Amino acid sequence: MDYTIRVATLEDCKDIYRMIMELAKHEKVSDQVKIAQRDLEQDGFSKNPFFQSIIAEVPEQHRSKDGHSKVGYALYFFAYSSWKGRSVYMEDLYVMPEYRGKGIGKALMSKIAQLGLAAGCNQLNFAVLNWNKESMDFYLSQGCWDVTTGLDYHCMRCEGPALEALARGDPKN
Amino acid sequence: MDYTIRVATLEDCKDIYRMIMELAKHEKVSDQVKIAQRDLEQDGFSKNPFFQSIIAEVPEQHRSKDGHSKVGYALYFFAYSSWKGRSVYMEDLYVMPEYRGKGIGKALMSKIAQLGLAAGCNQLNFAVLNWNKESMDFYLSQGCWDVTTGLDYHCMRCEGPALEALARGDPKN
Repeated sequence: MDYTIRVATLEDCKDIYRMIMELAKHEKVSDQVKIAQRDLEQDGFSKNPFFQSIIAEVPEQHRSKDGHSKVGYALYFFAYSSWKGRSVYMEDLYVMPEYRGKGIGKALMSKIAQLGLAAGCNQLNFAVLNWNKESMDFYLSQGCWDVTTGLDYHCMRCEGPALEALARGDPKN
Repeated sequence: MDYTIRVATLEDCKDIYRMIMELAKHEKVSDQVKIAQRDLEQDGFSKNPFFQSIIAEVPEQHRSKDGHSKVGYALYFFAYSSWKGRSVYMEDLYVMPEYRGKGIGKALMSKIAQLGLAAGCNQLNFAVLNWNKESMDFYLSQGCWDVTTGLDYHCMRCEGPALEALARGDPKN
């Protein structure tokens, strides 16, 4: 099947949002999605975007059962390691179920690798859900490795009222 | 002791690099640092910077034994969650040993929280080495929590020849 991989535009936000919700449903965390289509428009397509994205699109005749021609996306941003320099972080990679097994996910990921290398990045990082063996096997087949056990560090977070308190210099004790 | 927290400039890269190396030595990974001062200058202070940084500076009379007045730094970048939107990632937080216990680390971290909130971020994320209980206790006292066990995902990476192969669409199998 023919498909195109291209950089996303503002007009793609409706479909990106639809697919973010599909992915969250697949990952059983629909209630965790706090953003709206409008956030994607503001955060990804303003002067200093917080993320970049690419879209996989199929021709009219291959539209999905529900009439969609945008059938996959990836969302990424540039990051930095004070040891290794520029890197790219892939936040999401998604292909609609009826379009899987056609190389679209591989093509999206390859495109991110291209864009990352072109920007001088030497690492692509991302996370995979523990129970998602199918995805893990796919990523391992793409030359990626699991750094979790070797890293020996804890991922930490501060958010909500605790983040506001931290900003005031008055964190909870 | 008086100190100032301010946004870093190009001229701070020499000291930031010095402190990155001090931090790497403390973390017993000096051999892992592949960047040079010049990389920091290019990557953090060009048109589209890959990171932001802030500096802690003390007055002349409080210079370190080695004559340094820049005694701490933090390096961070903006990131994105397709569930929760804008976030800030703190890559490094460091205060020289002889200046610890004076609230400088707390002030640097509070400044990042301020800058993150001002940019519309609702999360601050970072990582802590497993054996670094002192740092972990500090972060927990600042209202942060350890998401590692709850996340249930694997951190993945692709780099070097594998990243180049992925970009060519010809990953190793």
